[in-house]
Amino acid sequence: MVINNNFYMSLAIKEAWRYQGLTYPNPAVGCTVVRGSGEILAVEAHKRAGEPHAEVAALKSAYFKLTNDKNIIDITTSSEIHFYLLKNHKNCFDKVSLYTTLEPCAHIGKTPSCATLISSLGIKTIFVGSNDTNEEASGGNGILKKSGLHVENNILKEECDNLLKPFKLWTQKSFVFFKWAQRLNGTTDGGIISSQESRINVHAMRDKCDLLVIGGNTVRVDRPTLDARLVNDGKAPDVLIVSRCKEFDMSIPLFSVQNRKVIISDDFSRCRNYKNIMIEGSSKMFELSRNIIDYYLCYLAPTVGGSNSFTEIDDKLEILNIQEEAQDIIMWMKRDV
Amino acid sequence: MVINNNFYMSLAIKEAWRYQGLTYPNPAVGCTVVRGSGEILAVEAHKRAGEPHAEVAALKSAYFKLTNDKNIIDITTSSEIHFYLLKNHKNCFDKVSLYTTLEPCAHIGKTPSCATLISSLGIKTIFVGSNDTNEEASGGNGILKKSGLHVENNILKEECDNLLKPFKLWTQKSFVFFKWAQRLNGTTDGGIISSQESRINVHAMRDKCDLLVIGGNTVRVDRPTLDARLVNDGKAPDVLIVSRCKEFDMSIPLFSVQNRKVIISDDFSRCRNYKNIMIEGSSKMFELSRNIIDYYLCYLAPTVGGSNSFTEIDDKLEILNIQEEAQDIIMWMKRDV
Ligand SMILES: [Zn+2]
Ligand SMILES: [Zn+2]
Repeated sequence: MVINNNFYMSLAIKEAWRYQGLTYPNPAVGCTVVRGSGEILAVEAHKRAGEPHAEVAALKSAYFKLTNDKNIIDITTSSEIHFYLLKNHKNCFDKVSLYTTLEPCAHIGKTPSCATLISSLGIKTIFVGSNDTNEEASGGNGILKKSGLHVENNILKEECDNLLKPFKLWTQKSFVFFKWAQRLNGTTDGGIISSQESRINVHAMRDKCDLLVIGGNTVRVDRPTLDARLVNDGKAPDVLIVSRCKEFDMSIPLFSVQNRKVIISDDFSRCRNYKNIMIEGSSKMFELSRNIIDYYLCYLAPTVGGSNSFTEIDDKLEILNIQEEAQDIIMWMKRDV
Repeated sequence: MVINNNFYMSLAIKEAWRYQGLTYPNPAVGCTVVRGSGEILAVEAHKRAGEPHAEVAALKSAYFKLTNDKNIIDITTSSEIHFYLLKNHKNCFDKVSLYTTLEPCAHIGKTPSCATLISSLGIKTIFVGSNDTNEEASGGNGILKKSGLHVENNILKEECDNLLKPFKLWTQKSFVFFKWAQRLNGTTDGGIISSQESRINVHAMRDKCDLLVIGGNTVRVDRPTLDARLVNDGKAPDVLIVSRCKEFDMSIPLFSVQNRKVIISDDFSRCRNYKNIMIEGSSKMFELSRNIIDYYLCYLAPTVGGSNSFTEIDDKLEILNIQEEAQDIIMWMKRDV
């Protein structure tokens, strides 16, 4: 194993993927803090909009590791961490390098600008993966360079760009991902497949989606609720049922979820009013939605059973990230072109 | 992400799994070398019998990183690395800790004892996962402690024991693993599934197996060679064909491989004369061999296609390790009990 800049960046990337789908409308970002010639002080990610950016979370952890100052532990809002670090750092970040999957933000929004914070802490070097092309937040590299930091760009750029892609898409137009759960032998039928942890994870993503797309047949057979009840204050997204036949038994639970719009349509055209769209799918939906899918998300349970799987389709995907969580494998993929 | 002893050990475990199945008759072992409060100097694994043990490989990499002494790069045999380090270390390992998935060996065999080497380099602390119960090699902890090192045992012990299990089994009796390749949708038919790199990896494992088990029907339909031609000097293992009908077309390539014994039998009883046994399988073989399987090894390609998958089986496996290699996912699993 080679321990180099790519290694430290890959830790940040790995950590950030764990929150992909949960950071909307913000990007999934990871940050590794390294001291001297290679001591890892922290690896953190941005977890949810309103919570600290990856750099702030990582600098908080690193500060605690460097100073053992317990006061910082209970400080959770981004602004407070920001000001606490500025006031108390006493040059502890002197020999520290940062690895961030995305250029630090220059924009003062819900949280102060990360680029300004990093510039003020005496950090010497920052390694960046993707550059920020978002108008509001970009300019971070400029701030860092102006204040004398050494900025090295394009570290594992392709991997960082893959991580950032959903954000780029939903800021431009919309991000569409196809999510399904299956067993090792490919089956998707026959009762609960994923672990409770995976199902909570899916509900947390639904809470961040504005539209959930599902096939008419699945609605009729599974009679789903499609809400986000497994997370606190989970918001149920609107639902688009793709179906030629417009007749549904209105006692199917999804129709009774409050503050939800249900659209029934022949096709996907009604997606255009939404930004972050999850398609929950069967074999047929996998094929139907092929041309509008940006990413695929598969929850793979290491079990064998069931009888129906995706068939009569030929496709080649590319793995973007795999991670093991509570005995399921969570795979993000895109079409291999 | 928490950066602690478990993190450093997990890097060693991850690296070691990449060579599981290739180290026979030696155990798969990994080693991480850390300086001071957390600088990772090296993460290495034992790759093949006759090549350096994980500790020696890791100390070699760490020595180069610490001293920049290029002379060590071309030294490849374990004894020579051993003596070079002893002669030239000049206390460069002063602030170094080791993380080894297995207690360092005390046995002077093809290579000198790792425990003695580690004791002689001024290393202060060693973190150990599994303890060595192999009579010949055990006693490493004793040597280390006697020389004043701080030894901490049982770091990620369960994970390290899972890594070590194949070795324990083949030294006691035999290790049997069921290997198959499939697509994401579970299919195992319809032409080549895995990447060339995965197929080379399988041939490298065949080269280390002494018996390959396969079903009669698969032999008749696929007409395989079952050799190890994709690796240099690959040795083809003996083959056990499990089949009630003993008649085979002798022009099927597997029968013409030199220095190979082919056994045709109703059952698995003839496995008893072998130590490291790979079962290559179909759905039917998965079920038939259920009671003699120790580990499962799945090569999962992120493609969709084919039509036949494992069916009419209910099983629950537990993931031991997942790794991404050349766009396939390699999964080691055991039955979840
Ligand atoms: Zn920021
Ligand atoms: Zn050894």
